[in-house]
Amino acid sequence: MSELRRDPIVGRQVLIAEDRAGRPNDFRGGEPANSVDQPARDCPFCGGREELTPAALLEVPGDGNAWQVRVVPNKYPAVSLGCEARALSANSSLESSPQVPIGSHEVIIESPRHVQDITELSVEEFAQVLRTYRDRVLHWSTDERVRYCSVFKNVGIAAGASLQHVHSQLVALPEIPPVMLAELGSAEYYLAKHRTCIFCKLIDDELELSQRLVVENDKFVAFCAFAGRQPYETWILPRDHSAQFEQLSDAEATDLSALLRDIVGRLLKQLSPLAYNLILHSSPFRQDTADYFHWHFELVPRSTQLAGFEWGTGMHINPLSPERAAARINGEEWG
Amino acid sequence: MSELRRDPIVGRQVLIAEDRAGRPNDFRGGEPANSVDQPARDCPFCGGREELTPAALLEVPGDGNAWQVRVVPNKYPAVSLGCEARALSANSSLESSPQVPIGSHEVIIESPRHVQDITELSVEEFAQVLRTYRDRVLHWSTDERVRYCSVFKNVGIAAGASLQHVHSQLVALPEIPPVMLAELGSAEYYLAKHRTCIFCKLIDDELELSQRLVVENDKFVAFCAFAGRQPYETWILPRDHSAQFEQLSDAEATDLSALLRDIVGRLLKQLSPLAYNLILHSSPFRQDTADYFHWHFELVPRSTQLAGFEWGTGMHINPLSPERAAARINGEEWG
Repeated sequence: MSELRRDPIVGRQVLIAEDRAGRPNDFRGGEPANSVDQPARDCPFCGGREELTPAALLEVPGDGNAWQVRVVPNKYPAVSLGCEARALSANSSLESSPQVPIGSHEVIIESPRHVQDITELSVEEFAQVLRTYRDRVLHWSTDERVRYCSVFKNVGIAAGASLQHVHSQLVALPEIPPVMLAELGSAEYYLAKHRTCIFCKLIDDELELSQRLVVENDKFVAFCAFAGRQPYETWILPRDHSAQFEQLSDAEATDLSALLRDIVGRLLKQLSPLAYNLILHSSPFRQDTADYFHWHFELVPRSTQLAGFEWGTGMHINPLSPERAAARINGEEWG
Repeated sequence: MSELRRDPIVGRQVLIAEDRAGRPNDFRGGEPANSVDQPARDCPFCGGREELTPAALLEVPGDGNAWQVRVVPNKYPAVSLGCEARALSANSSLESSPQVPIGSHEVIIESPRHVQDITELSVEEFAQVLRTYRDRVLHWSTDERVRYCSVFKNVGIAAGASLQHVHSQLVALPEIPPVMLAELGSAEYYLAKHRTCIFCKLIDDELELSQRLVVENDKFVAFCAFAGRQPYETWILPRDHSAQFEQLSDAEATDLSALLRDIVGRLLKQLSPLAYNLILHSSPFRQDTADYFHWHFELVPRSTQLAGFEWGTGMHINPLSPERAAARINGEEWG
């Protein structure tokens, strides 16, 4: 029997429908193995092949002459800066709506080594990547053309990755995107009504219920999302209330790195091949969200396709309950 | 250079970013070939194997004893009727939100033959399928527990299909889902402001501009969506204003069948393997939308994955402009 859940923050509707997990499938395999078509010697992100990417925006120095983390403009950007002048024909109501997007699309290359996932980086190496996210967000926070930085990571074909070499992306946008508008609106409303941060309340509830907890340490808590859209969807939040990811300290980056690597390592035991998106939700710039917003990461493993139902309704179907998912991640039985 | 478009109906943001089409990809293949794991002799939807599915809700008779179209309850339903009584523990704000979803999940088996797509059905055979959609929507329209019927078709792994045998699905829902709420809200607002149906206006604009037109006949028009979320996203609308799909006449079903088969046949020449969702948008029940809503189908080929950017922002990136897509479908050059 399935269950309709509403996301505690934005009210998004998810059908938890475990009966569907047993349905027959006559397609062979699900996703092709993540086989490398180009051998590593052609990879544009490997150390020693910097001429294949645009000049670096930032390099974190490594040993000797080497870099440890390298940020470059995306060669195939979805948005770009300085295109405002483009003239548009306007011969109907439809044609007047195109706008040229302003923004910046960057790639964060997380290692000069040709490795594919953060579990192959040391805790300190991935902490350096997280500090680089922070530094690039800080960079854009003072640019008046930019209202929001979307930072995300696509791993595996099913998550939309096109290159395997471990990397993340940052898209600086001129407006607050719809997903963040909805979240900010809900959080602001909750503060006005309940005088507390909705995310702080959620952390308290999840710690108390202890049904969806995955891992925690001194600074961070991770749990399977109550209305997760995909099996094993996991949210990672700082225990201490903070709206802006860019205020992360160097030491907190180390704690966060250890926690994220731990979670991905556990997910690798549940899903093979593992494909996932890791998505930062942080405060937009020049908006006082300090009291009501709480930055966090959403880690969304991608094992089921969005089909006609999801596209047509905006609702999701998740064939694995978040409680069972958490139990499996923790090596326990559920129900 | 990319372009930000807003959907003319709901304002959804799409980045048309053709530069991204050239980006490198080191994953071999995209989607595995649609190989059949179970040979046709195990397919639960084939004629002669009716005992593998629940008893039929509706059968359209074919030659002799055979059926032509068969509607059965989904054995792995996302929603089901008569589950209201389930008791829920309520020990925190979070736990009080689960609801047991009320509804019905049906499969429309479009042929007793083991074929995989509507192009393998005759115009008349697929017209009978469309009439079956209509009859099932009509059936639910008088049930007070149901506010909306989502009718859709998933073809190919990338579109979320799990069985290849040609079929569609219907989910009867107790509430109007978020995608339809947004569309109805926009259309109602447009009517109040402009005294006309926004979809009728869109049809006029697309016919006049003739940049995104795909095919048309006496009764229906199809064009690539101005702010299509995926390459080749195509909308199909009746020329005459009508809010309710269930008012489709038998003759109109034949015209619509011919048009849809034509479009899918053209898409098969552009995308291989072709995976797509076909999604009906029609009026909810017991709401007077006659003046402002206009039923239609959205046909969404699925060739690019939703990645971290889409999940994190709610915006889409489409690497093929709808104008170029329409030109390719029509065998022409663009730009």
